[in-house]
Amino acid sequence: MQKGDDEMPGDDMTERRRARLAAALETGADRERVDAILVSNLINVRYLTGFTGSNGAVLVWSAEHSGRREDAIATDGRYTAQVAEQAPVLPAEIARDCPPALLRYAVGQQAGVRLGIEAHTMTIAAFSDLRTVAAEAGVELVPMRDTVERLREVKDASEVESITSACAIADDALAALIERDAIAPGRSERDVARDLEWEMFARGADAIAFETIVAAGANSAVPHHRPTDAVLAVGDLVKIDFGAVSRGYHSDMTRTFVLGEPADWQREIYAVVSTAQQAGREALHAGASLAEIDAAARNVIVEAGYGDYYVHGLGHGVGLQIHERPGIGAAASGTLPVGATVTVEPGIYLPGRGGVRIEDTLVVTESHPRLLTTTDKAFRVL
Amino acid sequence: MQKGDDEMPGDDMTERRRARLAAALETGADRERVDAILVSNLINVRYLTGFTGSNGAVLVWSAEHSGRREDAIATDGRYTAQVAEQAPVLPAEIARDCPPALLRYAVGQQAGVRLGIEAHTMTIAAFSDLRTVAAEAGVELVPMRDTVERLREVKDASEVESITSACAIADDALAALIERDAIAPGRSERDVARDLEWEMFARGADAIAFETIVAAGANSAVPHHRPTDAVLAVGDLVKIDFGAVSRGYHSDMTRTFVLGEPADWQREIYAVVSTAQQAGREALHAGASLAEIDAAARNVIVEAGYGDYYVHGLGHGVGLQIHERPGIGAAASGTLPVGATVTVEPGIYLPGRGGVRIEDTLVVTESHPRLLTTTDKAFRVL
Repeated sequence: MQKGDDEMPGDDMTERRRARLAAALETGADRERVDAILVSNLINVRYLTGFTGSNGAVLVWSAEHSGRREDAIATDGRYTAQVAEQAPVLPAEIARDCPPALLRYAVGQQAGVRLGIEAHTMTIAAFSDLRTVAAEAGVELVPMRDTVERLREVKDASEVESITSACAIADDALAALIERDAIAPGRSERDVARDLEWEMFARGADAIAFETIVAAGANSAVPHHRPTDAVLAVGDLVKIDFGAVSRGYHSDMTRTFVLGEPADWQREIYAVVSTAQQAGREALHAGASLAEIDAAARNVIVEAGYGDYYVHGLGHGVGLQIHERPGIGAAASGTLPVGATVTVEPGIYLPGRGGVRIEDTLVVTESHPRLLTTTDKAFRVL
Repeated sequence: MQKGDDEMPGDDMTERRRARLAAALETGADRERVDAILVSNLINVRYLTGFTGSNGAVLVWSAEHSGRREDAIATDGRYTAQVAEQAPVLPAEIARDCPPALLRYAVGQQAGVRLGIEAHTMTIAAFSDLRTVAAEAGVELVPMRDTVERLREVKDASEVESITSACAIADDALAALIERDAIAPGRSERDVARDLEWEMFARGADAIAFETIVAAGANSAVPHHRPTDAVLAVGDLVKIDFGAVSRGYHSDMTRTFVLGEPADWQREIYAVVSTAQQAGREALHAGASLAEIDAAARNVIVEAGYGDYYVHGLGHGVGLQIHERPGIGAAASGTLPVGATVTVEPGIYLPGRGGVRIEDTLVVTESHPRLLTTTDKAFRVL
């Protein structure tokens, strides 16, 4: 159980994040130079301010204006008290429609402002409405993509701590299930999923990270199977993909077990996936190409003859969202930064028979990646 | 516990929904006449097809083309098996980026198609990418707003059944908590929230509808307070706002209790909110103006002198989303249709002291609205 006030990063932390954003705007790291950015993606608003309400936006000025212009947050009347508590250093505009309110606030500080907006989040409809307000106010809107998301790739200490805590909750919850034989023939996929979620809540999870996947027998060959009333049986592969949320941060882990003595084909695909997953983990060097990291694991599966049965990328960033930058896949561009928290999750799925996926969450360091999900990965008979 | 295959509406049901959409496109009910619409909002995709994956889109032709053009769905390789199972009558395009894939599919059926897109959902970035593909293919993109959401205002029988089931789960879960004295001095807001969520899962909830609100004492004056380690004490108002999800459909209910003998001010605001809530429920006539429904409840609170302490609208639609059309507020336009499922939830919030909100979910009929959340609303001392 965390204390309620642990949920928010301190003011210092969010101020440092806004300062990083201000610097990125000044250097035009995002190609476009703007005076300020209007951040309307709620995940990004939380990241930059600590505010967790369901309606809000934040205005951050480029570093060239720092000291002379003031950042601000906006939300509606339901959150007046909450925003004052969670983001006390920021002036708050209270309005139902936050982007126009912050646009007007920006114009009040500087006429003719060039204002970045989040093109990957803002809808066409919201943009169309905002453009009308901008035209009247003499503001130039500049569509930008993933400006804050790129900063979020590199986690700060408090973020790594939260993700580590979420991973520990998931590890402990799974251990408790195994300990009391809750993954066993005769139980349904739903039973197992609910038990696992309950164990996570009991260990202080704020939420589950995504709909828990428990897939038994032929269902394990469906990469994103949803739990049904299908009953686990002797001879089944049982694939469990799940995570916890702690202070807003997610964990992500998959383990695959077998009920009773494994068949040769089960042993074989488990061994291949296990080797591929190790190769993927070992390829997580700071500065490595994302596509090459994917290839390190994929080559193992392709060379073993199962390339057609591995239908997704190797992994993804994990943080305030369960899927975030960087994506690690065959078509990915870019490299892996120190401080990224990512999954490594190759799989082999044989339609109608069964599948194996093994997934960890790790943090990239200057030397070896650090494993945050620590549940054993040997092929386990339950 | 529902059976797994109860989760999806039958093909007949989703075909009827697509036929309603096709008719709306033909009549130009959405002002713009188009040949087809490319639906990319995942909630709308689920509504129109039964498909529940995390990536997908659906193409629906206007009724004037029916019989000659074929609707289609798109998703990526992770969901090949799932889409065949959940939407067996629709041809499926397998592609990572669904809107361009369906745009090309549409052009394959008819050159020079006028294609509607969901402007309220599609991001500026996705639109910018799609526009490039559209230009090459000779397709005219037509931004539309809330086309499917308007159809979703009126629930069909299977939807009302699912919402009713979600409401019953919530009613029973709260009754179980009261029964075993789990809402009591000495327990924390978090304890109560987790117990309530667990009771909902134990009764077959697929998920909780939103982060459960348990707010005690002065916290009850925060409309959307998140549960903390604050401990319930004698004399507190305890406001509990929560819901369950059943087969994708949500419930929404708030009850406010008092721990120990209530103070006069607590009795007074409870009585005012209770009278306002009843007035709001009684105003839910088919065809009534949404703003007038809001006013029916609001006037009670304003006349009692608490207008400044009621800071939100009266209610909202509930369905595949916890908040959907129609919004019932002072500034709302439009009227209430038969078959809408909506909340009625006035409140009074006295900062630093405490607040009361009473909320039900109801379905609008030709005669009286039918109450779906049936927990008693008398002021209850726990």
